[in-house]
Amino acid sequence: MSAYDELMAFQRQTEALGQVAGRLGWDQETVMPRGAAAQRSEEVGALHAVLHARRTDPRVAAWLDAVEGETLDQVGEAQVRHIRRGYDRAVRVPADLAAALARRTALSQGEWAAAREAGDFAAFAPVLAEVVALKREEGAALADGGDIYDALLDDYEPGAVAADLEAMFSALRPGLVDLREAALAHASAAPTVTGVFDPQSQMKLARQLAKVAGYDMTRGRLDKAVHPFSSGSGSDVRITTRTSDTDPFNCLYSTLHEVGHATYEQAIDPAYALTPLGAGVSMGVHESQSRIVENQLGRSRAFTGWLYTQMQQVFGDFGIDSADAFYAAVNALHRGFIRTEADEVQYNLHVLLRFDLERALVSGDLAASDLETAWNDRFKADFGYDVPDAAQGCLQDVHWSVGLFGYFPTYSLGNVYSGCLHSALRQAVPDLDDHLAVGDMSHASAWLRENVQQHGGLYTPRELITRACGFEPTEAPLMAYLQEKFGALYPEG
Amino acid sequence: MSAYDELMAFQRQTEALGQVAGRLGWDQETVMPRGAAAQRSEEVGALHAVLHARRTDPRVAAWLDAVEGETLDQVGEAQVRHIRRGYDRAVRVPADLAAALARRTALSQGEWAAAREAGDFAAFAPVLAEVVALKREEGAALADGGDIYDALLDDYEPGAVAADLEAMFSALRPGLVDLREAALAHASAAPTVTGVFDPQSQMKLARQLAKVAGYDMTRGRLDKAVHPFSSGSGSDVRITTRTSDTDPFNCLYSTLHEVGHATYEQAIDPAYALTPLGAGVSMGVHESQSRIVENQLGRSRAFTGWLYTQMQQVFGDFGIDSADAFYAAVNALHRGFIRTEADEVQYNLHVLLRFDLERALVSGDLAASDLETAWNDRFKADFGYDVPDAAQGCLQDVHWSVGLFGYFPTYSLGNVYSGCLHSALRQAVPDLDDHLAVGDMSHASAWLRENVQQHGGLYTPRELITRACGFEPTEAPLMAYLQEKFGALYPEG
Repeated sequence: MSAYDELMAFQRQTEALGQVAGRLGWDQETVMPRGAAAQRSEEVGALHAVLHARRTDPRVAAWLDAVEGETLDQVGEAQVRHIRRGYDRAVRVPADLAAALARRTALSQGEWAAAREAGDFAAFAPVLAEVVALKREEGAALADGGDIYDALLDDYEPGAVAADLEAMFSALRPGLVDLREAALAHASAAPTVTGVFDPQSQMKLARQLAKVAGYDMTRGRLDKAVHPFSSGSGSDVRITTRTSDTDPFNCLYSTLHEVGHATYEQAIDPAYALTPLGAGVSMGVHESQSRIVENQLGRSRAFTGWLYTQMQQVFGDFGIDSADAFYAAVNALHRGFIRTEADEVQYNLHVLLRFDLERALVSGDLAASDLETAWNDRFKADFGYDVPDAAQGCLQDVHWSVGLFGYFPTYSLGNVYSGCLHSALRQAVPDLDDHLAVGDMSHASAWLRENVQQHGGLYTPRELITRACGFEPTEAPLMAYLQEKFGALYPEG
Repeated sequence: MSAYDELMAFQRQTEALGQVAGRLGWDQETVMPRGAAAQRSEEVGALHAVLHARRTDPRVAAWLDAVEGETLDQVGEAQVRHIRRGYDRAVRVPADLAAALARRTALSQGEWAAAREAGDFAAFAPVLAEVVALKREEGAALADGGDIYDALLDDYEPGAVAADLEAMFSALRPGLVDLREAALAHASAAPTVTGVFDPQSQMKLARQLAKVAGYDMTRGRLDKAVHPFSSGSGSDVRITTRTSDTDPFNCLYSTLHEVGHATYEQAIDPAYALTPLGAGVSMGVHESQSRIVENQLGRSRAFTGWLYTQMQQVFGDFGIDSADAFYAAVNALHRGFIRTEADEVQYNLHVLLRFDLERALVSGDLAASDLETAWNDRFKADFGYDVPDAAQGCLQDVHWSVGLFGYFPTYSLGNVYSGCLHSALRQAVPDLDDHLAVGDMSHASAWLRENVQQHGGLYTPRELITRACGFEPTEAPLMAYLQEKFGALYPEG
């Protein structure tokens, strides 16, 4: 066996064990008995100890060195690039620091939940300060002399640097603020659904939507959970959604969002299964797939026209009397505070706020104790109204409490990528709306599969999007799309 | 840290990973997408490779040697005994042989299923011969000069030897043959249920029965699967059952059986969780817990009187007009061929047949190619009628195809143990029937928990049963129970 073959055989087992960890995560969120939590954390801990030992195994370094002398094809080069990157990052973080971070964040998620419940940021500030300090240490270890925030960001978006994202987002922000203001001046006109929506019927329609959007149920399943998510790679990619008796869109659009993630995993070349190339290449690219299915396709006038008829068949009269009114309802803008409930226009304003504040936290320019004030000031500036309490402000997201710094910007990067991909898709499939109008997403799915999804981790994220679109990604297509769509939905004067 | 503490910390992670493997097994039988099977086998293979490496880790031997010099309490002595036994057995089987067995049995289960489907024993005989040859090799490695069959049996019933079981079963068999013959002379009189039984109502009643029998749903769950089973230890012990539209007893008594297994695991002292003492001590003791709940308690006249009223409430009229008739229906004897469908009287005759034939296969006295003839001859002798085809004869059970030699006798040993425990329980709780008659199993559950279940692996199986009963286990109490019960149900002449 060549060093490459030995390395890949070892890596394959590591990837398989990583999938097992994913399966445990799914179990925990969907079917685990509530009394099993403590034992489960030991089970997960034991599995992660095995994974960590494999990811820092000295044999990996030896194989990587030996592979230098071998001639590899493009796939082999990409595999080795991923494995080397993973190994280098894993060995840079001292075991003591990794353990301290694990202990701290295992506790701080509960402390965050309690503080959010109480709306008491002051109680959480010292915890946040500790998490930030540990993440700065981890970032410094990973950065190896480079930028700390970029080193953290690299965990979620390999190769991305904050300066590039800042330039992109700065170009986006003023347009979003203007669009938000103009649209909300007319927001009261948006129609809303009425009635009670049977959860079983919602799930039945969600299953139908999942199939329409290309999700293969023989290699996945759809269940209910508190938070919608997608989990797993290869031939076992499961999704969850949730239902609300009064808001069917929560279930249906959460499903479409997760199907966007899941079809990406399902469409990756099976030859890459259980290898580093066999999963979505970055959080940003992943989010581009979920957002394009949910928004550019799922909330389009054409597709919502078809969905309106489906909903009428399932729910009868639900207080919306035309397809145009239905389209307005699924694209309604509201004065809200919560990122996860935000519409296409305001969503990125929520994310950009977090991106700027978390960089200030990591650089030390912003003390953890000053976060609430900084958050509220920035919110007022971008949204035009005041945050009523910390639960609807800086305590609303779990991310920072568990050490996810550098994660937020991938949401907006994903939106930017989805704007680019949507523009290229419309060029490639000029009659796309004709298909969407009859509930046929297959042309869009096929284009995404062919140009993005099948490649898994073969290219770098930016390279992948550039190849798919035929141009370097910028924020311009997203902005143009939003202006056209919401300008028409909320015409001025 | 002492060597004992180091050993136990290592073992604790191994046990936790073993629980993860159990969770994957549950997932596979209940919720796994059907397209995920191939990938899952790689995931399970990777986890088992990790477990095997830990079970044969040279550090375990070093810790075990070092522990010799330490003073341990009773629990510590028992832990070390289990770990030493597991280590010794794991290192005795050469890696090549273990791999050959894994490869062979991975294939032969499918080959068995195909042969059973076709009713074609000749097609399966060469496969069986290969499996037997490999198991003989494994048994010889494990036996280290001792008896090969006993070495295999020891996997499922530590400390048991075939000669003792043979003596016990030989004393049982003639009485069972006589009882079977006498009872079946009157079998046509047994009443049967009529109508269609809604699966959801069956599951609702099954959940109620599970609670009545002491199953803690906050540390477990009940689902449907093709085969009923119990899975997991500690605070995550899940069970499955199945439903038949025309036979509600299948669902209800499978549930009681699995609850017997599951309450055993749930009742083990929490201090033993994720240690070698934290699981049922043997297959025989496990089966004693499932059988006593299913049969001696669940099919008693007292409990069935209560169950009859519950079933009337759920299903209305189902063709049985009295509690006595209901009792006769759940204890009906039939001329059948299938072990898993057999009643209390005939069940052990099925097992004893297998015990004798598998010992002959392992010793070489019986060639695999001659199994069908030997099976059919023995069946005719014990049951009095002819086996119509191999699917209802020697191909009915999966066990041998996957290398489970030495497993069958633990079923009958469990029945013998349940007979002993039931006798002791009746002594300890003289008014047990008064409680069972109102659907209260708690006195029985408490006695089993106190005298058997809480101890986990602290004592050897036989020691445990002897302590619980106050006498050395023999087949006599089971035989006396069966003669009394079925003598009354099917009085001669």
